[in-house]
Amino acid sequence: MAVKFAERVELLKASEIREILKVAVRPEIISFAGGLPAPEVFPIEELKRTAVQVLDEAGGQALQYSTTEGFEPLRRQVAARIAAKFAVDVGYDNVLITSGSQQALDLAGKLFLDAGDVVLCESPTYLAAISAFRAYQARFVAVPTDDEGMIIEELANILRTTERVKLIYVIPDFQNPSGRTWSLERRRQFAALVQEYEVPVVEDNPYGELRFAGETLPAVKSFDSKGLVVYVGTFSKIFCPGLRIGWIAAAAKFFEKLVLIKQGTDLHTSSLSQREIAKFLELYDLDAHVAKIVAVYRRRRDAMMTAMDAMFPAAVKHTYPQGGLFTWVELPAGFKAVKLLHDCLERNVAFVPGDSFFPNGQVENTLRLNFSNMSEERIREGIGRMAAAIREYR
Amino acid sequence: MAVKFAERVELLKASEIREILKVAVRPEIISFAGGLPAPEVFPIEELKRTAVQVLDEAGGQALQYSTTEGFEPLRRQVAARIAAKFAVDVGYDNVLITSGSQQALDLAGKLFLDAGDVVLCESPTYLAAISAFRAYQARFVAVPTDDEGMIIEELANILRTTERVKLIYVIPDFQNPSGRTWSLERRRQFAALVQEYEVPVVEDNPYGELRFAGETLPAVKSFDSKGLVVYVGTFSKIFCPGLRIGWIAAAAKFFEKLVLIKQGTDLHTSSLSQREIAKFLELYDLDAHVAKIVAVYRRRRDAMMTAMDAMFPAAVKHTYPQGGLFTWVELPAGFKAVKLLHDCLERNVAFVPGDSFFPNGQVENTLRLNFSNMSEERIREGIGRMAAAIREYR
Repeated sequence: MAVKFAERVELLKASEIREILKVAVRPEIISFAGGLPAPEVFPIEELKRTAVQVLDEAGGQALQYSTTEGFEPLRRQVAARIAAKFAVDVGYDNVLITSGSQQALDLAGKLFLDAGDVVLCESPTYLAAISAFRAYQARFVAVPTDDEGMIIEELANILRTTERVKLIYVIPDFQNPSGRTWSLERRRQFAALVQEYEVPVVEDNPYGELRFAGETLPAVKSFDSKGLVVYVGTFSKIFCPGLRIGWIAAAAKFFEKLVLIKQGTDLHTSSLSQREIAKFLELYDLDAHVAKIVAVYRRRRDAMMTAMDAMFPAAVKHTYPQGGLFTWVELPAGFKAVKLLHDCLERNVAFVPGDSFFPNGQVENTLRLNFSNMSEERIREGIGRMAAAIREYR
Repeated sequence: MAVKFAERVELLKASEIREILKVAVRPEIISFAGGLPAPEVFPIEELKRTAVQVLDEAGGQALQYSTTEGFEPLRRQVAARIAAKFAVDVGYDNVLITSGSQQALDLAGKLFLDAGDVVLCESPTYLAAISAFRAYQARFVAVPTDDEGMIIEELANILRTTERVKLIYVIPDFQNPSGRTWSLERRRQFAALVQEYEVPVVEDNPYGELRFAGETLPAVKSFDSKGLVVYVGTFSKIFCPGLRIGWIAAAAKFFEKLVLIKQGTDLHTSSLSQREIAKFLELYDLDAHVAKIVAVYRRRRDAMMTAMDAMFPAAVKHTYPQGGLFTWVELPAGFKAVKLLHDCLERNVAFVPGDSFFPNGQVENTLRLNFSNMSEERIREGIGRMAAAIREYR
């Protein structure tokens, strides 16, 4: 006998983002690489008061084992919030608290995916969702996408002709990595097609509340008459990521299985963290807090857009995100973003080459920039250095 | 197309413990059913101070994303602790912080198990480990076990004759559910056999520090010359479970893969919780805290043993645990523990029938009792009521 790993292990690769971030934590680096919220807006003082109050009022329970579904008052708060903001109206008893939204993706993969099953996704799509689903040995088929979302005719064609499609993964609001947002009409058409084919969807909405202008759009889930959409959210971007609190809102037939799966995966999410967030929501105004975050990110988005338009060569294209944390840059054909990254790192600027966001790879001239974690001044400086590296690229 | 779950979902069952606990939370119930620590010994005041200090000193980092491996000072503290207590000497850079030890079991399953692979385990064994591994469609083979641990000749025979053995799962200290502890000699023999067959082991040690008498024994991992043992521990029983902080200590070849797997599973464990425990360990004496817990549990163990010996019929056997949270009861042949449970619930006493702890079921006359969560008075009262139910059983 000799040690043999599970087959899935061969598919796991160290994430490029992760390796880059190891360099990017050096203080001299201007990093557009991560997806880090701005720590300046973390409600530290409020959390101190909240933590003490939770332990005073219910320390014995906050430190004890608790139910897999999550802390009921928090489930009610989440249910009310996603109903008010995104018209996701499932009732609190269909809300499962998860250990960050990454765990929600893992649980969804575990629920739906056998080896060889197909996940349809946007192209590009969120890197860590690829990792989560790949661990269940899924294959990926990228659905052609324009500025309004997945192209419905293309999706219909793929659904008609592809075997073993078990899941569709989408990020309709301020997508990571592209910064794009699906139009209302596209959401409706997508939901209608999904009901027709009865294929489960994971709708991932970590950024939806971080809107800089215009009106919030209803989630795809709000048009989900057959209960096919597993809606995923998180406090990471509207509060802080360090507590690792996310959620799933799903129809009972999925919810029950997800609870069983989560039970075997980590029993339940931190009782203390759940009660801290619930108490914060009771004592403070999260909407006001989100408004503060949005004001900061809007200025940073503006700084990045203005700097790119002023300094990048005209042949370099970028998206103009209406919210969220990211913009997507397309270099002229023939440019290799990985090569540019090395040139930029010599100038102490970091970003993530786009290749990792395509599940099947091979797109070399794109990259993702994050604008939430650097000051406007550093954004301007960093874009200037990138512009120089692009001009000198060979 | 119609919605189809992954094949593994058919294998998931709602846990009997879980359903019972739903009743057992009523205050009038004397519950020996759960595995809950005594909340009276949670260090609530200390944690209030700790939480505030962490946010004062490093709030921005405590609330931010952090590395998958875990908070380095905590990894160093864990490495030092398991080396000092159990001779597990792996170095801090081989310690991975997990979201409770349940997650450690899930990650190990994900690393080693393909559908149809075999996990060898004690019989009975920990219920939630069965759930964790079953999610990867493992089959279980129970290794005959006596009061000193797995019987080596039986294990050797199984290893020689069984195909696809990918993992051996053991709990050598104060086992859940049996309360038994492996002898030193058995640990050595087991480790030697494992090195010979080169089969990975998960050694689960949540209770090892809760010893009521005698000397702590070195972990199986301490005899693991080839780095085959994945050692799993947790703060749940020596501190509190609500924070969900556990760990894996494993050789580099396993550690690297486990980090990649955890990254796709939940990115990382709560930065805030990790820093709170690290700060607690810096400011307070965890050994003194554990000594307090041990004193409480020892009295409760004594109360339960004395009451059972005085009141149960002589034909009812039980283990005499030297530590931990559980004892194991064997009813005379012909008794059905599930039937007895219903009789006991009418008397407001709860426990877990033993059947769930056998991966392949069909042992009807055993049950598990927890003694950590009830006062001595309630333990005596509850055992008295159980004794009455046993006498009146038909």
